[in-house]
Amino acid sequence: MTDAFQQILDDARAASLVLAQTPTTVKNQALAAIADALLTNSDRIVTANAQDLDLSRGDGMAEGLLDRLQLTAERVEGLVRAVRDIAALPDPIGEVLGGSTLPNGLHLTQVRVPFGVVGSIYEARPNVTVDLAAILLKSGNVAILRGGSAAENTNTVLVDVIGSALENCGLPRAAVQTIDAFGREGANRLMNARGLVDVLVPRGSASLISAVVNDSSVPVIETGAGVVHIFLDASAELEMASDIVHNAKTQRVGVCNALETLLVHRDAASRLIPSILKKLVESGVTIHADDATRAIFPHAEPATAEDWGHEYLSLDLAVKIVDSLQDAIDHIGVHSTHHTDAIITNDMANAERFVAEVDSAVVMVNASTRFTDGGEFGFGAEVGISTQKLHARGPMGLRELTSTKWIVRGNGQWRE
Amino acid sequence: MTDAFQQILDDARAASLVLAQTPTTVKNQALAAIADALLTNSDRIVTANAQDLDLSRGDGMAEGLLDRLQLTAERVEGLVRAVRDIAALPDPIGEVLGGSTLPNGLHLTQVRVPFGVVGSIYEARPNVTVDLAAILLKSGNVAILRGGSAAENTNTVLVDVIGSALENCGLPRAAVQTIDAFGREGANRLMNARGLVDVLVPRGSASLISAVVNDSSVPVIETGAGVVHIFLDASAELEMASDIVHNAKTQRVGVCNALETLLVHRDAASRLIPSILKKLVESGVTIHADDATRAIFPHAEPATAEDWGHEYLSLDLAVKIVDSLQDAIDHIGVHSTHHTDAIITNDMANAERFVAEVDSAVVMVNASTRFTDGGEFGFGAEVGISTQKLHARGPMGLRELTSTKWIVRGNGQWRE
Repeated sequence: MTDAFQQILDDARAASLVLAQTPTTVKNQALAAIADALLTNSDRIVTANAQDLDLSRGDGMAEGLLDRLQLTAERVEGLVRAVRDIAALPDPIGEVLGGSTLPNGLHLTQVRVPFGVVGSIYEARPNVTVDLAAILLKSGNVAILRGGSAAENTNTVLVDVIGSALENCGLPRAAVQTIDAFGREGANRLMNARGLVDVLVPRGSASLISAVVNDSSVPVIETGAGVVHIFLDASAELEMASDIVHNAKTQRVGVCNALETLLVHRDAASRLIPSILKKLVESGVTIHADDATRAIFPHAEPATAEDWGHEYLSLDLAVKIVDSLQDAIDHIGVHSTHHTDAIITNDMANAERFVAEVDSAVVMVNASTRFTDGGEFGFGAEVGISTQKLHARGPMGLRELTSTKWIVRGNGQWRE
Repeated sequence: MTDAFQQILDDARAASLVLAQTPTTVKNQALAAIADALLTNSDRIVTANAQDLDLSRGDGMAEGLLDRLQLTAERVEGLVRAVRDIAALPDPIGEVLGGSTLPNGLHLTQVRVPFGVVGSIYEARPNVTVDLAAILLKSGNVAILRGGSAAENTNTVLVDVIGSALENCGLPRAAVQTIDAFGREGANRLMNARGLVDVLVPRGSASLISAVVNDSSVPVIETGAGVVHIFLDASAELEMASDIVHNAKTQRVGVCNALETLLVHRDAASRLIPSILKKLVESGVTIHADDATRAIFPHAEPATAEDWGHEYLSLDLAVKIVDSLQDAIDHIGVHSTHHTDAIITNDMANAERFVAEVDSAVVMVNASTRFTDGGEFGFGAEVGISTQKLHARGPMGLRELTSTKWIVRGNGQWRE
């Protein structure tokens, strides 16, 4: 096994040298070829996927996970559209970020280059395989993918189809490889291939990401959980507050930018809480509230200490009345995962203070937290939402999958 | 110990909230106050340092390390000048990096914010304590410093002097703290304070940095070793090549941007090697060369496999003749630490190919590798030279010690 895995790493490194020099037109041709090949091989993909589904059903996988594992012909078409969309995005590689001419005449240029070899560890969602392969190819990176073992048959076919399309365009098959066959041991080796793998991007549950962060010596970009807060300031308009809160909680649950905790300024509590919470309950939301809220809105469960900072990912909402903007900022500082937090207010000074003092990847004023999304932000593709402060923070698009290089051009300068 | 250490982390977090909101003028006043206080307390600092020197001398510390540990009144004055220089640099915090107005009217702005709490682990060089404190303060970050235990007395006084100056300016003393008193256990806790410490910046030897990289669950910015190469292409001009090579090897040894391996194109070997190596030998350089080089220049030690990719940090140089540009790029790909690599050439196409294909933080054409330096690049201050691809690559200045935050301003938008 040792040699086969090392071969994958070596092949990836060799492929990365090719991909880093591949012009945009060729990368786009390859993406088009991948899209075509996925469509042509749709039956083969769906058949392999059916095997995975059967095995997982036999293993007692939950319905929700089976749904995420499943690829239908229609879903393959969706993947094909996504690949074509990625082909249409601007190429980040080669972008000049800045530079200068030094007093001694040296010309400095900082240009955007690929990371090189990017590893990803994710769960049994074969759409992620295609998505990552396309995004990484477009950004000039080589992919080493470790999907959940439950999707191994599907991923094997997908990577084979992608590899053939790459070869048909004169690019190395090793630009997209899977290590599913190496099981957990493969994941461990990937996480410790420092110097051979440039960056790891885990995707999936909080526990998967935290395991990768802890076990990896390769630098990791953490895409984190979202314990998202909205604070209704004393001056919040009822209709705006209600629309935004309802949208942030119910438009889609189970996503990281959905609302989890609502904080309400004491001075606005009786004005705002009854109708806002009533509308949520009518939409099926269970309210977990502190005593002060329940005094105004009795139709709520009593909140326990576990409700603050809890990522429900379901139709549940924690609600708390706070005495001041400062208390709201303090609560968010303690309980937020620093993904997205918002204030609804008509008070300019409070808006500015919230924006300055809440230390989250995205801080919003008078908008639904559901807008924290690479697509909504106009990035085209999204790799995830970074909740770490190093390298990338917030929605990550193609640019966030790149590094930089300094080029220094002289005519014989040496240092005094 | 547990509580005292946790208190340091908690105090640092609280101080980071203050520092993130501190205006540039106040930070600059604090830096000026620190500079003044260092000067006023010079005797106290030098006395504490003398204790450290005595203890280390008793422990048999090598002369070179003793020199790095020593602070004289003159060296304190140098530190004071450095602090004042940092005060004069532009404040990176608050810089707007970009943004857009989305079709739905949402205004997006990406602004530069501090990391928050930055830890650093370094060796017994008390000048680093002052340097890091000043750079981190200017960039709005709180510092938790772990210097070598041999400098504990000096660092204690330095941090005390800095803390008093901060307090006199109304800033929290906890903005700069030392954990030297907690020994190795403190370093371990710092490396595993994920979520409490935002970033770690180790400074020092390759082994120290590699230990931090391996043991830390906090994200690390790796400032790495420099196995620096220069390739003399077939068209290299003798005088330019000789000046640059001599400068890169001998102007200062023991630094990460000094030349370690010279590669020479076979077609230029007999024209270039004799006089270039002769001049180096006259400056005291020991040449470790392959057989082809020794055939032209017998006054060289035979190179062994260990010489390629070796960071001498001394008056030693590995020299090898290669058959082609491709061979030079391949050798660098295998043996470089991807810090700085340079080509000396008159051939435009070869220069461009070298620049594109050599995957190093800084790639140079016709210039001495000694220019890879934050000061030379015009960054003012330098925290180190990053050899990793995540977050920062190459010389790191104040900007590289920051993160970003997205601010989204709306007027009631919610997602369809």
